Amino acid sequence: MTTELEHLAARLREFAQVREWEQFHTPKNLAMALAGEVGELVAEFQWLTAEESRSPGPDALARMRTELGDVTLYLIRLADVLGVDLMAAAEAKLDDNDRRYDADRYRGSARKAPRTT
Amino acid sequence: MTTELEHLAARLREFAQVREWEQFHTPKNLAMALAGEVGELVAEFQWLTAEESRSPGPDALARMRTELGDVTLYLIRLADVLGVDLMAAAEAKLDDNDRRYDADRYRGSARKAPRTT
Amino acid sequence: MTTELEHLAARLREFAQVREWEQFHTPKNLAMALAGEVGELVAEFQWLTAEESRSPGPDALARMRTELGDVTLYLIRLADVLGVDLMAAAEAKLDDNDRRYDADRYRGSARKAPRTT
Amino acid sequence: MTTELEHLAARLREFAQVREWEQFHTPKNLAMALAGEVGELVAEFQWLTAEESRSPGPDALARMRTELGDVTLYLIRLADVLGVDLMAAAEAKLDDNDRRYDADRYRGSARKAPRTT
Repeated sequence: MTTELEHLAARLREFAQVREWEQFHTPKNLAMALAGEVGELVAEFQWLTAEESRSPGPDALARMRTELGDVTLYLIRLADVLGVDLMAAAEAKLDDNDRRYDADRYRGSARKAPRTT
Repeated sequence: MTTELEHLAARLREFAQVREWEQFHTPKNLAMALAGEVGELVAEFQWLTAEESRSPGPDALARMRTELGDVTLYLIRLADVLGVDLMAAAEAKLDDNDRRYDADRYRGSARKAPRTT
Repeated sequence: MTTELEHLAARLREFAQVREWEQFHTPKNLAMALAGEVGELVAEFQWLTAEESRSPGPDALARMRTELGDVTLYLIRLADVLGVDLMAAAEAKLDDNDRRYDADRYRGSARKAPRTT
Repeated sequence: MTTELEHLAARLREFAQVREWEQFHTPKNLAMALAGEVGELVAEFQWLTAEESRSPGPDALARMRTELGDVTLYLIRLADVLGVDLMAAAEAKLDDNDRRYDADRYRGSARKAPRTT
């Protein structure tokens, strides 16, 4: 992980430890918490047109930023308790996608992403 | 952003550009794609007990790692098109949580997280 | 519940019973399974424009129909194990919304839905 | 659809019409709204143990019921704008599952549900 991700993971570890919340932070529970936060993030976009979503007003953008922060925290925490290196997992997945979606073949074409796992 | 997050954001930007997928990468669409990937991640945990989720077998862990990678990619891409610094947003949110959940008051107590926005 | 919903709830109960899956069908697990299926449903719409989503082609519509079926099954099963009457809960919530969103005040206005709980 | 589902679908149609919200009720937007509500539902269960989720207290159960109502409303509305018969879709999916999961073979075995679409 990067220094900054490691820093956040360590802060989250301590945050849970001093509150004795490690008992609640099973991967299963953290995956649910992540899903809940992503639900809140999606709700910020649900009535916006495509164009509106590209240039949200300052209040909407502030809420989106907060929700993005929440999602990031649970994602880092979940990866940490599972012992997964998030950046390595993402780089590996992007390498896969690079191979899977040939630039010439998929250029400009909206597609249903094939299931990846 | 960290160097490594910036690196991934830049790779994703180029990935979309060479495929002319920027037209599809509205914040609204990317939030949906993120929700779809989180759904796949949650599905990996749905029938596991709390304990099983703490020590998944190698196959399950590999699938979780892949899904975590997918979630991370869409999260970074969404933040990038919105111009949000993901690490700063996460640090700010954790600062908030530190203030909100007094360690003595919340110690060891499972709680329904108060809505944060 | 309606006769038809009751019929499905009873079929699902028997489906779980003959497979001895009741042990897995805790409300917590079923809520996760529901979230996973909704993720698959959302994924069907993620790259479609608003207009395209109004008139999907026959293949896309067939996939949406399948996902809607999955979501409905888990929703009915979850309500059943919790002892919640889904139709009564929905009617009560719609009564609330009728009061909350005054037709004159909210006419034609896209709005961030206020949190309801 | 059943009489009661049809009744709710008709109420929702009128609810949207008198507020001139039909413009916002594209299948895409409704799928997002459904995902947002399912996120709220999942959040009710995230810190509960399996056992606690089987017997929630009266306050938690009331919140779950409200969220189940919300999910049901968006699900019915989404199916209605797509022209999908929700009960027929669910029955068809359950027929599939009946064939797919042989009772003897899958008895008592937690399993990763195979992708269904």
